[in-house]
Amino acid sequence: MDALDSINRMLEAAIADAAKDSPPRLAEALRYAVFPGGARLRPKLCMSVGWACGAQDLKLLAGAGAAIELLHCASLVHDDLPCFDDADTRRGKIALHRVFGDQIGVLAGDSLIVMAFDVLAVASQSEPGRLAPLTRIVSRAGGAAGGIAAGQAWECEPQIDTSRYHCAKTGSLFSAATMAGAAAAGVPYEPWRRVGLMIGEAYQVADDICDAVGDAEQLGKPVGRDAALARPSACQELGLEGAIARLKYLVQQAIDAVPDCPRRVELTAQIRKEASRFLPEHIARLAA
Amino acid sequence: MDALDSINRMLEAAIADAAKDSPPRLAEALRYAVFPGGARLRPKLCMSVGWACGAQDLKLLAGAGAAIELLHCASLVHDDLPCFDDADTRRGKIALHRVFGDQIGVLAGDSLIVMAFDVLAVASQSEPGRLAPLTRIVSRAGGAAGGIAAGQAWECEPQIDTSRYHCAKTGSLFSAATMAGAAAAGVPYEPWRRVGLMIGEAYQVADDICDAVGDAEQLGKPVGRDAALARPSACQELGLEGAIARLKYLVQQAIDAVPDCPRRVELTAQIRKEASRFLPEHIARLAA
Repeated sequence: MDALDSINRMLEAAIADAAKDSPPRLAEALRYAVFPGGARLRPKLCMSVGWACGAQDLKLLAGAGAAIELLHCASLVHDDLPCFDDADTRRGKIALHRVFGDQIGVLAGDSLIVMAFDVLAVASQSEPGRLAPLTRIVSRAGGAAGGIAAGQAWECEPQIDTSRYHCAKTGSLFSAATMAGAAAAGVPYEPWRRVGLMIGEAYQVADDICDAVGDAEQLGKPVGRDAALARPSACQELGLEGAIARLKYLVQQAIDAVPDCPRRVELTAQIRKEASRFLPEHIARLAA
Repeated sequence: MDALDSINRMLEAAIADAAKDSPPRLAEALRYAVFPGGARLRPKLCMSVGWACGAQDLKLLAGAGAAIELLHCASLVHDDLPCFDDADTRRGKIALHRVFGDQIGVLAGDSLIVMAFDVLAVASQSEPGRLAPLTRIVSRAGGAAGGIAAGQAWECEPQIDTSRYHCAKTGSLFSAATMAGAAAAGVPYEPWRRVGLMIGEAYQVADDICDAVGDAEQLGKPVGRDAALARPSACQELGLEGAIARLKYLVQQAIDAVPDCPRRVELTAQIRKEASRFLPEHIARLAA
């Protein structure tokens, strides 16, 4: 079974489990928030690292990936709320709160955060000693201490610390993905932080590029939001060419940071391949 | 050290830890949401049950209580948002989102949910095998499957299932409190569910009574909200006297449900004493 399939099954099981005792509209909203997914970059990265580290317990590894994806989905739902981005569309469909209302928007996000930790607890049955480190990795990535909540909250400060902002908003979930992959495999996870941070920063730069020069229909989400909301953007800072050079540099940094592990060569090839898809073809062509 | 003190220290440590790498306004909001606390009924109940069951690891027990209190605080912050109750005040002070804005309101709630699970992971260090059951208890209490998110979401349904609504909105955290106390002590926790559910239902009835006949200033929150928002209320269903009789009946049911444990007598006395404070004196006098 391939990684994407394992992750989707784990997400499916978690959502079906919640739906058993959930008000119908909330249950429907949870499914809407998680399926169909985006690229599932973070859980796929988590599984690739676990695999490269020789993970045996694939249920735990998929659980770790699914937990990170659930936090990501929660953050998208909350980010789209009227008090934040007030977005109309997400992943090529109508934004969740526009379909289900703001109340269900808040509650769906809350439920997905809770579900992330529930999934970890269920998946760690045969390796109970790995639950605490995995929980800590995932909670750091989601919370106020440098996690995605912190990332959003930097936007509410009169002065943004740009580096901490990006690190929290995007880097946190990518570094959680690499660290959780290693932790699920039972190997030291701290050395994997930098790999995720670099990939996250590369992804953020790619996202800035898409927002600046992309096409809303092809991306499945609105563009030009960074300029409209006066958010920091790599494209504005470095120009299009500079931003693309930065993206390439960061991917190389990520690859250089990969620690020794049983399948290092395969993993670095995979990172390079996945990163080459960060920019949709029509934008990559602009840069060629 | 008494229970309240242990809980507050645990909450203090969690908030201080988050603040180390949090944007300043979010860090301030987290503290605002958690301190000064309300009655801390749920974590105190959790600790009482753990103590009655002979818990040895008081750090884990306080962690379990603190996790439940953090979910409770998160739900209060989100419930007060404009898209829900649009409340001006909470615990006798200005509602969080009125001080920090709706964005920080959403993010503070999210961060507190995440923090709940982080606290469990940190507190379970010497009993790693108890983390999974505790996480599952807490996640059920907070999430879409019969937890507080489900409770709120029932309010968004065209037809409310009143029993499931109350069970999820109030019962879930109280039953999590009794079950987590037992789980932290390492004894079977399922028999403790009914104790918490009955106490939770009693508390809900008391809350309905306060909302119907209470005084906003003395309660530290607005009154008359059930009628204004057409929410189900024990007072409307049973009248004041009927509601008070129901409250007493539920407390007795809770006491009858307490399983055998080393300090059963002390625990039942404590439950009776705490429940006698569910109604402020001026309302209890109305009923006398």
